[in-house]
Amino acid sequence: MGYTIAVVGATGAVGTQMIKMLEESSLPIDKMRYLSSSRSAGKVLKFKEQNITVEETKKDSFEGVDIALFSAGGGTSAKFAPYAVKSGAVVVDNTSFFRQNSNVPLVVPEVNAHAMEEHNGIIACPNCSTIQMMVALEPIRQKWGLERIIVSTYQAVSGAGSLAIEETKRELKEAVVDGINPKDLKADILPASGDKKHFPIAFNALAQIDVFTDNDYTFEEMKMTNETKKIMEDDSIAVSATCVRIPVLSGHSESVYIETKDTAVIADVKKAIAEFPGAILEDDPSQQIYPQAVNAVGKKETFVGRIRKDLDAKKGIHMWVVSDNLLKGAAWNSVQIAEKLHERGLVHPTTELKFELK
Amino acid sequence: MGYTIAVVGATGAVGTQMIKMLEESSLPIDKMRYLSSSRSAGKVLKFKEQNITVEETKKDSFEGVDIALFSAGGGTSAKFAPYAVKSGAVVVDNTSFFRQNSNVPLVVPEVNAHAMEEHNGIIACPNCSTIQMMVALEPIRQKWGLERIIVSTYQAVSGAGSLAIEETKRELKEAVVDGINPKDLKADILPASGDKKHFPIAFNALAQIDVFTDNDYTFEEMKMTNETKKIMEDDSIAVSATCVRIPVLSGHSESVYIETKDTAVIADVKKAIAEFPGAILEDDPSQQIYPQAVNAVGKKETFVGRIRKDLDAKKGIHMWVVSDNLLKGAAWNSVQIAEKLHERGLVHPTTELKFELK
Repeated sequence: MGYTIAVVGATGAVGTQMIKMLEESSLPIDKMRYLSSSRSAGKVLKFKEQNITVEETKKDSFEGVDIALFSAGGGTSAKFAPYAVKSGAVVVDNTSFFRQNSNVPLVVPEVNAHAMEEHNGIIACPNCSTIQMMVALEPIRQKWGLERIIVSTYQAVSGAGSLAIEETKRELKEAVVDGINPKDLKADILPASGDKKHFPIAFNALAQIDVFTDNDYTFEEMKMTNETKKIMEDDSIAVSATCVRIPVLSGHSESVYIETKDTAVIADVKKAIAEFPGAILEDDPSQQIYPQAVNAVGKKETFVGRIRKDLDAKKGIHMWVVSDNLLKGAAWNSVQIAEKLHERGLVHPTTELKFELK
Repeated sequence: MGYTIAVVGATGAVGTQMIKMLEESSLPIDKMRYLSSSRSAGKVLKFKEQNITVEETKKDSFEGVDIALFSAGGGTSAKFAPYAVKSGAVVVDNTSFFRQNSNVPLVVPEVNAHAMEEHNGIIACPNCSTIQMMVALEPIRQKWGLERIIVSTYQAVSGAGSLAIEETKRELKEAVVDGINPKDLKADILPASGDKKHFPIAFNALAQIDVFTDNDYTFEEMKMTNETKKIMEDDSIAVSATCVRIPVLSGHSESVYIETKDTAVIADVKKAIAEFPGAILEDDPSQQIYPQAVNAVGKKETFVGRIRKDLDAKKGIHMWVVSDNLLKGAAWNSVQIAEKLHERGLVHPTTELKFELK
């Protein structure tokens, strides 16, 4: 007997990839359910050869569902995930809503799969920019410890959803083909759909992802700080991020600087990364081999290169980390969590509901 | 009586902007000479209303020239700049060839104009990515000192010349309009025209600018390290850079992390930057105000924003620095040096030739 699996947000940029990852998965699946907002309900999407009609997400949508993958925005998760848990499903939530909830494990399977053991019905998938950094840094943390992280991101627009992809393509066409001055391009989505002002991304780099918080860091930047501490289970790791959107459709790149607790030899760091599951070492400057966003698209792994000592700090190391933000950064990490839940026998109803039903 | 000014590399991406900056300059100019390779010789370019025929650069091209602005590659500067000096001209060289020569001042006028006083006929203009960082950091260095710099750049393709601009536009059109998978795009120029392999820039971020050096940093990255020390006249400042090309035509952005010697209050740092010549503070997260490449294009200033304390290091500060790489990063800084030479009475023949005639 296999599972009934629901994908909430099935028509979105991440939902589409979740379906693809589930099609490729070894999970025993009996039945798929595609859920969405009322706007997309009625559409027909494939699962392998099968036609599945998208249904509107409702509080009683989850009866009979074993695993529900949520990726339809924090509001949808807040509203419906507790009902899914109440109905007996295990939720893998790709939004930020539950990530800092102490009842919710925040999981990158290669790093802290053990945290799922004590789940209360919801497992959170970290932010895309955090996940790939965790895969690159965990092998280093395990061997030499991590004192601090300074990261500057080069993030793709697909992290902001399908509308951001369409906006970027439209702007680039207007700038390149129609010759419109990039600063005169009209923008409605980026840098953050929920914020007051919108700016062009064509021929631009926007040092804002998500809205600003009180400390002048953006929420995206604070996600990298707070999620790293939770996933690595160490509040003492110093993390400061600068998150930047660039005109790339998919594939996040990151310039990561770390200081280790113990001094590491670069050759050993490269070996540790090469041997770590989910990480692929691409690092040979003599052959111009280093990770590139265009090559990472469609792959499940995180690619690491440009690994080198800081020119001054003895325990300082720089590296370049690239992954497909829709796959390892979202859909694949979520499906991978579902696979691990299955492997560990953790797909079961929760006895005590620890989340508020709204 | 005004000057005779020669622009070497007049038809290139930077040369074109040098001409524009000279047209707007208050320098007393009697005569303009446009020089280039034999390939571009014979073209006719404007200077204000005047038609000027481009001449091939030769060893005897500089007779009667008072100021020669070079931006035609390191090889051309190596070969011809000493002859220009011998002919009595003062050279402002925009290439990297003479930058680390102890007989050559390396100048960002707002930072170290005094270094020009002892020139020997050649003044070097720093690398684009260094210049804008110097304008942002000098006001901080003056008041609180600088211990270290970690910088990740988001550099525009125009820094690699006109052919790189054309390549980027062609790739973007093929990716956006023709639907070609970005990784299958053909590239001939980027990341470095002189290197073995070339990679697409459309929908990509290339963690290579210029070729690699023996320590696994690129030359571009080492320029930022070495030039910072020379311009700030302090070898103890620790500088490590990660230089990255992104699909932007013009306007370099930089994520800069610094540690000051003395603890600085952010409000004071903002004030110091706002008051510094050539720097413009654009920093109000509540109004989504921060520097953007598309807004910096065509401006001579360096824009600084996203200034905030590191979340852990007491003396750590992050900021976002943006400028037009062809203007302050090259053409404007060069013409500005020429203006300062004039203001300081330093436009005169050199008595002792300190450069090798090849």
